[in-house]
Amino acid sequence: MSQLKPYVLGIDMGGTNTTIGVVDSRGRIAATTSIKTRDYAEFEDFTDAICKNARRLMSEVGGEDMIAGIGIGAPNANYYSGNIEEAPNLPWRGVLPLGEALSEALDIPVAVTNDANAAAIGEMTYGAARGMRDFIMITLGTGVGSGIVVNGQLVYGNDGFAGELGHTCAIRDGRQCGCGKKGCLETYCSATGMVRTALEFLQTRSEDSLLRKLDPEALTSKDVYDAAMQGDALSREIFDYTGRIMGMAFADFVAFSAPEAIVLFGGLAQAGDLLMKPIREAMEPNLLPYWRGKIKLIPSALKSSEAAVLGAAALGWKAK
Amino acid sequence: MSQLKPYVLGIDMGGTNTTIGVVDSRGRIAATTSIKTRDYAEFEDFTDAICKNARRLMSEVGGEDMIAGIGIGAPNANYYSGNIEEAPNLPWRGVLPLGEALSEALDIPVAVTNDANAAAIGEMTYGAARGMRDFIMITLGTGVGSGIVVNGQLVYGNDGFAGELGHTCAIRDGRQCGCGKKGCLETYCSATGMVRTALEFLQTRSEDSLLRKLDPEALTSKDVYDAAMQGDALSREIFDYTGRIMGMAFADFVAFSAPEAIVLFGGLAQAGDLLMKPIREAMEPNLLPYWRGKIKLIPSALKSSEAAVLGAAALGWKAK
Repeated sequence: MSQLKPYVLGIDMGGTNTTIGVVDSRGRIAATTSIKTRDYAEFEDFTDAICKNARRLMSEVGGEDMIAGIGIGAPNANYYSGNIEEAPNLPWRGVLPLGEALSEALDIPVAVTNDANAAAIGEMTYGAARGMRDFIMITLGTGVGSGIVVNGQLVYGNDGFAGELGHTCAIRDGRQCGCGKKGCLETYCSATGMVRTALEFLQTRSEDSLLRKLDPEALTSKDVYDAAMQGDALSREIFDYTGRIMGMAFADFVAFSAPEAIVLFGGLAQAGDLLMKPIREAMEPNLLPYWRGKIKLIPSALKSSEAAVLGAAALGWKAK
Repeated sequence: MSQLKPYVLGIDMGGTNTTIGVVDSRGRIAATTSIKTRDYAEFEDFTDAICKNARRLMSEVGGEDMIAGIGIGAPNANYYSGNIEEAPNLPWRGVLPLGEALSEALDIPVAVTNDANAAAIGEMTYGAARGMRDFIMITLGTGVGSGIVVNGQLVYGNDGFAGELGHTCAIRDGRQCGCGKKGCLETYCSATGMVRTALEFLQTRSEDSLLRKLDPEALTSKDVYDAAMQGDALSREIFDYTGRIMGMAFADFVAFSAPEAIVLFGGLAQAGDLLMKPIREAMEPNLLPYWRGKIKLIPSALKSSEAAVLGAAALGWKAK
């Protein structure tokens, strides 16, 4: 990173909001703003709006000469091409040349990757994985994303799409996944997957639960967490079930890359022992003996409101 | 690799034989010899014998000044430490300082790794994975080993033991594995695992089979192959079953590192369509849609008698 250019621009592009931040080398956000992703009929209008806002933010810290690079975390984004490819949660179809559009308009190097990879880079640069050369980032949200770091480098794979651990098989012929397959890890262990478990438990079992007082159509993983914290037995079982499936899956991930740690990100990752304990209990016996007791399991150390922008920003230091 | 030093020494250390070869940059074996691993009561006697034979081989190509490095593939060997750690198939217990013993005695840089990693490096340097930066090597023998290459580099992980894909879970609570866990991939897909399948099929099913003419205690995967090639239906089903489990596992491996190819090594890998077809048929529907039809599945391109030494030798070029 250049001494002359003390900032990077981090852009977290989501299906609803897109947040832009100017970030320094210590992970402090010097300036930030947001736009509504869906306010733009054409992708070009959207990138124009990004550029306009980026220029304004950059001028607040001394202009574009102060910016070493731009990093973008976006759904279905490909590191190699800089394109977004067929993202189901965005309003524009097809292949979107995000990296090219911004680097041409702003004349600053741009690097693009998906949200989970950006989170992994953010954690490595500013968060819980500082100093680690081998770790696996698991993001628990609507889906289960992953960013894998091997030898200090993000694993992009041959096509730029490596690290889809949410779509490894947790239960053969299990729940239908949005990807078309069955039994994917994310159908059980995402926030949404945990709600599916809750609804299943509420339907197939008869014991009383605080969850029965809530509208099942509006049930969230936060509701399950709140009930579990109030001692609701069924809700605790839902966490146990979710954690157990996650732990068994994590043991296989360890066999792949022998990471120093698995870092969990997202609302569920903040559930503490409610989730961490069953994960640990299921992971340990499924590890090869010499890994037992050695693999760290840690929650993200980044503030959730800042993590996505910091992750994207961290990638900006590597933009060329 | 130094232009002045045109050879490396490759050492393939096995539970029965240890083979030493002098190899050039194109993978030609200039000189080779073997010793019996179990002829040496003490580990020091064994390393002395290696050194004696190595010196003789080196003198045949002009002396040790012609040798750029020594690469060793050995069971349970750790790349970072250069040690063999608790190898169940070797006559000596505990931690064996293999790398240190040889580099001190011969004054040549030594690099050590396990057999499957050596096979991967060999394939990348001299074989089917030349030019590939992302692939997964699967070795099918007594066990199932793996060597994972990401971004042109072997994945060693935080502790040097990464790439234990034979011990990922293929079938939850399935067959007892030698590692103490249940359902590991290698209990189904190694040569030994395939024999277990054959014995299970012969016991639980009633149809006629060429395999019933053989002594079940002495049955080998080669017998199953021979019978399948003669049209034996049950033997073909054994291959289908083995390939199906492998294919489902491979789909999850792809989700991890998005490799260009999966390269298969070992006797079973030469079974052609008998094995490759069921692998492919099980892998494809378990891949995320954008990987379907894109992941190559290829047998090793190295002669099986030479592969282990070539793999070890290839590592020698990277010894420091």
